[in-house]
Amino acid sequence: MNYGIVIFPSKKLQDIANSYRKRYDPHYALVPPHLTLKNVFSADDDQIKDIAGKLSVISKKYDPFNLKVYKVSSFQPVNNVIYFKVESKPELQGLHDDMHNQNFMGDEPEFAFVPHITIAQKLSNDEHSDIFGSLSMLGIDHEEIIDRFHLLYQLENGSWTVYETFRLGKEQ
Amino acid sequence: MNYGIVIFPSKKLQDIANSYRKRYDPHYALVPPHLTLKNVFSADDDQIKDIAGKLSVISKKYDPFNLKVYKVSSFQPVNNVIYFKVESKPELQGLHDDMHNQNFMGDEPEFAFVPHITIAQKLSNDEHSDIFGSLSMLGIDHEEIIDRFHLLYQLENGSWTVYETFRLGKEQ
Repeated sequence: MNYGIVIFPSKKLQDIANSYRKRYDPHYALVPPHLTLKNVFSADDDQIKDIAGKLSVISKKYDPFNLKVYKVSSFQPVNNVIYFKVESKPELQGLHDDMHNQNFMGDEPEFAFVPHITIAQKLSNDEHSDIFGSLSMLGIDHEEIIDRFHLLYQLENGSWTVYETFRLGKEQ
Repeated sequence: MNYGIVIFPSKKLQDIANSYRKRYDPHYALVPPHLTLKNVFSADDDQIKDIAGKLSVISKKYDPFNLKVYKVSSFQPVNNVIYFKVESKPELQGLHDDMHNQNFMGDEPEFAFVPHITIAQKLSNDEHSDIFGSLSMLGIDHEEIIDRFHLLYQLENGSWTVYETFRLGKEQ
């Protein structure tokens, strides 16, 4: 089964992201707006229990933190993905690193971690320049507290369901 | 903000339900297949913290239980909704009742609790007879263990995001 680990931001930020995703992101109907901590990976039922246990330990290492979204950016020329850029934070980097080390699943991160919330993807080069031009002008400036992350699994139709929520911090 | 409380069944059962929902349920893209424990309700940020606390207490009262889906049924003539009928269980009834009593939010259940997973809705009378005819013949027979439920909230586009997962049982 395919799994992934994400942060869902607040309804407010999700609604803003969806106002763009509706038109520019073919994954709009498959998953709510999110910040990916760990990309899609495959695990069986036993492995995922072990992973859920490790995520529970990781979630207790980090306190809730401030998420700041401060501009519209793009991964071009690597690919035509437009996103809300999220300010790097020790908690975000720590969560990502803990999910990509030898003790977790033994896999290395594919890319340097650029925390982001995708708002447009699978664009042609022309679409990309047009849309990136207008979205950059509109801009984004938003802050909120993140206090949880989610382990998701993927259905056959490509959509994602939450398997479990992990709250950050030691009070739990 | 709008909230709801549901059980997401296993990937296997969700995939079966989606094979029908894709054609017959306009909510297909808004939420994965689910068994509703508490229908949509409105709560503000303070209320939902209180409710999440109460759900945590409720989740510890019930152990994981066997969910049995044993036939395709319909709510006609009340409305043209076709669903997988779920066998009643003390745990299911208990979860539902605890979420509809004076100490929870003070609201009464709207209907008697008929545990089900919707696979078709918003059908005309003619569509309903056709589809119900064929789906009843196909039937359904599936069992699995349920060990968690989810508190969801609704975005402006009508789709649902998980706010928190609650695991059943005392070991947590």
